[in-house]
Amino acid sequence: MDIIRQVNEMMRWVREQRASGEEIGVVPTMGYLHEGHLSLCRLSSADGGRTVVTVFVNPTQFGAGEDLARYPRDEERDLKMLRELGISAVFLPTPEEMYPPDYVTYVETGGPSQGWCGATRPTHFRGVTTVISQMFHILQPNRAYFGQKDAQQVAVLKQMVRDLKFPIQVIVGEIVREPDGLAMSSRNTYLTAEDRKAALVLFRALQLGRDLYKQGEHSGERLTKAMLRVTAAEPHVRPDYIGVVNRRCFRAVEEVSPEDLLIGAIYVGSCRLIDNLDVSPQVYPLRD
Amino acid sequence: MDIIRQVNEMMRWVREQRASGEEIGVVPTMGYLHEGHLSLCRLSSADGGRTVVTVFVNPTQFGAGEDLARYPRDEERDLKMLRELGISAVFLPTPEEMYPPDYVTYVETGGPSQGWCGATRPTHFRGVTTVISQMFHILQPNRAYFGQKDAQQVAVLKQMVRDLKFPIQVIVGEIVREPDGLAMSSRNTYLTAEDRKAALVLFRALQLGRDLYKQGEHSGERLTKAMLRVTAAEPHVRPDYIGVVNRRCFRAVEEVSPEDLLIGAIYVGSCRLIDNLDVSPQVYPLRD
Repeated sequence: MDIIRQVNEMMRWVREQRASGEEIGVVPTMGYLHEGHLSLCRLSSADGGRTVVTVFVNPTQFGAGEDLARYPRDEERDLKMLRELGISAVFLPTPEEMYPPDYVTYVETGGPSQGWCGATRPTHFRGVTTVISQMFHILQPNRAYFGQKDAQQVAVLKQMVRDLKFPIQVIVGEIVREPDGLAMSSRNTYLTAEDRKAALVLFRALQLGRDLYKQGEHSGERLTKAMLRVTAAEPHVRPDYIGVVNRRCFRAVEEVSPEDLLIGAIYVGSCRLIDNLDVSPQVYPLRD
Repeated sequence: MDIIRQVNEMMRWVREQRASGEEIGVVPTMGYLHEGHLSLCRLSSADGGRTVVTVFVNPTQFGAGEDLARYPRDEERDLKMLRELGISAVFLPTPEEMYPPDYVTYVETGGPSQGWCGATRPTHFRGVTTVISQMFHILQPNRAYFGQKDAQQVAVLKQMVRDLKFPIQVIVGEIVREPDGLAMSSRNTYLTAEDRKAALVLFRALQLGRDLYKQGEHSGERLTKAMLRVTAAEPHVRPDYIGVVNRRCFRAVEEVSPEDLLIGAIYVGSCRLIDNLDVSPQVYPLRD
């Protein structure tokens, strides 16, 4: 497994792979890997060619007062996990190389980046689209793998790839959950035992939304209210948002369809967690 | 010469060239070609591989009230000129394909896009960086050729390529001038005989700036004032800006260096023209 820290060196590696006819899959991460990331690596490995995992805690996607400084990092552990998976290369650039002092270019995707996480974190998606554009140019992948846990990020990146005509297929991996249903996230490490239990309320709320839809409740507003009642009943938790959206444009839907998405974000202690659930399971392809 | 109008078809063409090991040079244009564009095509041809010329009057780089609707177009003449040059392919997409109805993504480069043309045309460079990003993704070129006439555009695009890590070499072609010194521009077609004569005042002003520098005047402010006096003496012309800038960051310089750039923009009749001149000729490489 090649461990590469310099942009130029990474680009040279990519050129070599390209010259020998290899396809490239990339799994962009912020490190502190969990089973969600690893499932994306396995998807990429199964698709063949070379898999590159990027590990970069991207400063531009954190707002002022967010958890950039304390975001969990453990490079040794990450590399060990990736070695066991047979990854071809890991790219760990420095913030200084990705954003040199005279850096001034940003990629901004409106549409699906508005509202929800985009409302709570106004510069977040701009940071994501900017760093992923850089990674796409450096790595020239045929395929890029993202987790459905970050559903709005997926909608934004698919929109960016369509709009800017990146010659890259975006592939989405299903949410990986703990046995009790909590969506895996590097940020779960912030949770105390008490937080951990309270955090489950979000998944329960989303599951209730799905059950109510199955029972015939197709009003986005009423589903949202019902889900909010669930999170409100958990005093240890503060809801950020709960809603039902079109999974492509991320606009709230009035009349809910099976392919729509139940979404939510909550604060638990010092931690902000997100989750989502298909209104109807498995009606939407992970590849399009 | 392949004439391609669909994004997908163009991407297929590029994949085929790549698969057979061909390098690609791209000359992005808005059509209505003149000797300036053709000189860039010749630079690309000399570098080998395939040359693709794009002809697209990009709506997002025109502001409200600018000359988008009347911008000169003559596809047949353009194609004839390119055929004679031995160009591999011409890409003529429609605005609808480049910007479909739900289009929401923009690439924005601060720094060198601020001031000068960026002050007069606030959304211009955002349109340029956005469409060139699209073209770069569609065409996957090794090299891209731009004319030094649009010096600020060159600075902006080089900054974008650096910041976003496009694996593309930007090559700049020298300004091609009419025998009397007027910088070639598709917009020169707007000029009446009287306009045409008056328009020369800009190049005369820039030449005076160079002469004064050679004679020892190294103050950016005094050089600017001297050049402004030249344009002010021509009643048929209204200056937009005149200045001396660092060619990379496009900030005005106080103490002028040989590698700085004398720049200007004027209105002549209904037409806005730009031009620029190295403070000292040929100290700056066209390739870097």
